[in-house]
Amino acid sequence: MPPRTAKAVRVAAGDLVRVIDVDGGQVGDVFAFAGNGTELTEHHSAAHTRAGIDRLFPAVGESFVTDRRRPILTLVEDTSPGRHDMLIPACDPARYAALGAPGHRSCATNLREALADEGLGFTGPTPQPINVFMRVPVGEDGRLHWLTANSRPGDAVTLRAEMDCVVVVSACPQDLVRISDAGLSPLAIETVHNGGNHS
Amino acid sequence: MPPRTAKAVRVAAGDLVRVIDVDGGQVGDVFAFAGNGTELTEHHSAAHTRAGIDRLFPAVGESFVTDRRRPILTLVEDTSPGRHDMLIPACDPARYAALGAPGHRSCATNLREALADEGLGFTGPTPQPINVFMRVPVGEDGRLHWLTANSRPGDAVTLRAEMDCVVVVSACPQDLVRISDAGLSPLAIETVHNGGNHS
Repeated sequence: MPPRTAKAVRVAAGDLVRVIDVDGGQVGDVFAFAGNGTELTEHHSAAHTRAGIDRLFPAVGESFVTDRRRPILTLVEDTSPGRHDMLIPACDPARYAALGAPGHRSCATNLREALADEGLGFTGPTPQPINVFMRVPVGEDGRLHWLTANSRPGDAVTLRAEMDCVVVVSACPQDLVRISDAGLSPLAIETVHNGGNHS
Repeated sequence: MPPRTAKAVRVAAGDLVRVIDVDGGQVGDVFAFAGNGTELTEHHSAAHTRAGIDRLFPAVGESFVTDRRRPILTLVEDTSPGRHDMLIPACDPARYAALGAPGHRSCATNLREALADEGLGFTGPTPQPINVFMRVPVGEDGRLHWLTANSRPGDAVTLRAEMDCVVVVSACPQDLVRISDAGLSPLAIETVHNGGNHS
């Protein structure tokens, strides 16, 4: 998908979703909603995932769970340096207004547009995203340090669906803070269905 | 409020809300909803607060913001050792079912009961709470360590309302993990109205 845009894909339990940082240094906001998309009432939850794994972000082999504490995605492979974030919310119109850029594209709006492209409406609060390739380490004093993404061209994160779900990936349009000092670039999303066919 | 229960209070901008750990070692889950309670569509947000302050938990003088990035509560005083959590979700029926205790009281249920006591219905997903007196430090490797609360009898956190809002405090009923090894005990909630009268 081009820079600043998002895409939603429907996957079945057992399918793989691969998010590829084509040129490197690009943050992706990932969201996952349970079910086949008729109702988007249950979704991945950053807080419930942290409590489930006793860690800020899953290690390879660990799962993201929903707000009902059901496994929805498992991190099965990561070819990047492994710096990802699950502390920071999606950028949204309020964020850009505060940064002096009203009307700027945002992951919160991208999410809704990508779901609408699949015929899905979503009116709930934006779930706190899984920010792949986003580097916000925690200092000893609890300070958060926003660093430029250090993922390399072709680095990829592979997630296995643990239930039928809708996965949305937004190539984050944030170009006003340091996370994307490398410049905005595209992400690719690849799905491998249970039977083995790619799309 | 007695152990395992919650209470909702309506406060106006400028009012103070003090949460007191009467006997010490008791975790409190705090929630704040914008407005005077007719519609509970905007609430404090752990993730937006982190991004606003670049820190895991506000320091004295810093504010919690809503999911629309508007300041809702400011931490104005803290007489406790200052160990609080904003990484872990509210305990809920799914959590206790997984711990082998279906039907156990939970902060998620407490929240809804306390709001109902004020005539307020809430059907949205449980906001990630402000867990006062809860000690879950982050290790260097991103590991979370669940430690027993070390607040002392009478320790208190004082919050100033930055807008009219409904504040809910739940004396966390979690007695199956280490955070409450000191035993469950009551919390007190005290409000000081702008004009100076207590309740």
